[in-house]
Amino acid sequence: MKPIKALVFDLYGTLYDVHSVAGACGERFPGRGLEISILWRQKQLEYTWLRTLMGDYVPFEKATDDALDFVASHLKLSLTTAAHKDLCDAYLRLQPYPGVEATLTSLRERGLPLAILSNGSSFSIGSVVKNSGLDHLFDHLISVESTKVFKPHDAVYRLAENALGWSRDEILFVSSNGWDACGARHFGYQVCWVNRNGNTLDVLGQKPDFAVTDLRELPDLVGNAVMS
Amino acid sequence: MKPIKALVFDLYGTLYDVHSVAGACGERFPGRGLEISILWRQKQLEYTWLRTLMGDYVPFEKATDDALDFVASHLKLSLTTAAHKDLCDAYLRLQPYPGVEATLTSLRERGLPLAILSNGSSFSIGSVVKNSGLDHLFDHLISVESTKVFKPHDAVYRLAENALGWSRDEILFVSSNGWDACGARHFGYQVCWVNRNGNTLDVLGQKPDFAVTDLRELPDLVGNAVMS
Repeated sequence: MKPIKALVFDLYGTLYDVHSVAGACGERFPGRGLEISILWRQKQLEYTWLRTLMGDYVPFEKATDDALDFVASHLKLSLTTAAHKDLCDAYLRLQPYPGVEATLTSLRERGLPLAILSNGSSFSIGSVVKNSGLDHLFDHLISVESTKVFKPHDAVYRLAENALGWSRDEILFVSSNGWDACGARHFGYQVCWVNRNGNTLDVLGQKPDFAVTDLRELPDLVGNAVMS
Repeated sequence: MKPIKALVFDLYGTLYDVHSVAGACGERFPGRGLEISILWRQKQLEYTWLRTLMGDYVPFEKATDDALDFVASHLKLSLTTAAHKDLCDAYLRLQPYPGVEATLTSLRERGLPLAILSNGSSFSIGSVVKNSGLDHLFDHLISVESTKVFKPHDAVYRLAENALGWSRDEILFVSSNGWDACGARHFGYQVCWVNRNGNTLDVLGQKPDFAVTDLRELPDLVGNAVMS
């Protein structure tokens, strides 16, 4: 295992909690916030995969919007255009998980460049990061939008390698999405899977190099990996 | 709309009921057959999409096998190697939906060539069709395996157009999987979505040309489409 020279983070679900939109959903549909946000997230991901396979790329925000259309129709929710827009906009104000700021600060203090590599558009990534006040912590905010494909396509993972200037096996890719961790491992990054909720790893022929239950374990893990 | 010259059917979930494996699952895990078969099917599909995106194709049977590994681990089911194999083998003996034989016979009597286009391997497709005694009804059994990608990739849909020798807008593609119906429509087939259970169509920028609730509506639909 080579020493780690830089870190790349997934955004949605890894640094920022996608189910923080459950609150906005629950305000409109009391008692159903999490049910709505889970199905919405599932369909959002499926639509990024299916659109890429069909060769019919749309920006992440459009996939998110379409997924909410599906959810409203499937769950028979009555959503005005304004309410639909409000819920989608909640994706621009996701909350970071506890300890994200302290963890990233600690990693930067070790001189490690930090990047985000996300399915989101540059606009969305910038909005989420700025709204949370963490924009000073990243060297690169990288969107898939230039590739017109979504994760786990290799063309996406390559973007961060190119931006950071280190080879893939010297970069630690951090994701809480098991399929993303597997895709990044297949590409050749060192990978840390953040498994907060005791999830089962997808069976895709790959194993992350590391697994943690909380991002706050990262500074020690990287310290040890650098030493090893 | 051009007259229809040939029909192409999806296999899993369209002509044959994937949840007929629920019976085999329920025998081993009483009361949990459908829960297991639904999650198994969801993961099987996800793994075909993710493997294609990662550029790491495996045969459909391997994706099915991996998906069952996930399910067993996630639902904490104790499965011996032999039991695992038995459950996977149930996918080779899926039951056709009611009316499939009569419907296909009626379409053939109108002189329409019939094909199956499936994610399965040639071996699996052949096994399912032969076990059900319907092998005399098809002119072509077409597997994705030569393309090394899965649906809804265009390369897959192209296989059936090439085999049938009619242009895509003269072929009716029939699927009960909404995402497959959308992919085939994006490719340019005329598409009939078989929506048996009042499902919600995925929002992927496509609308099937026709929707039926039962395959037995097809002969009339094709007759009218030929006349129109």
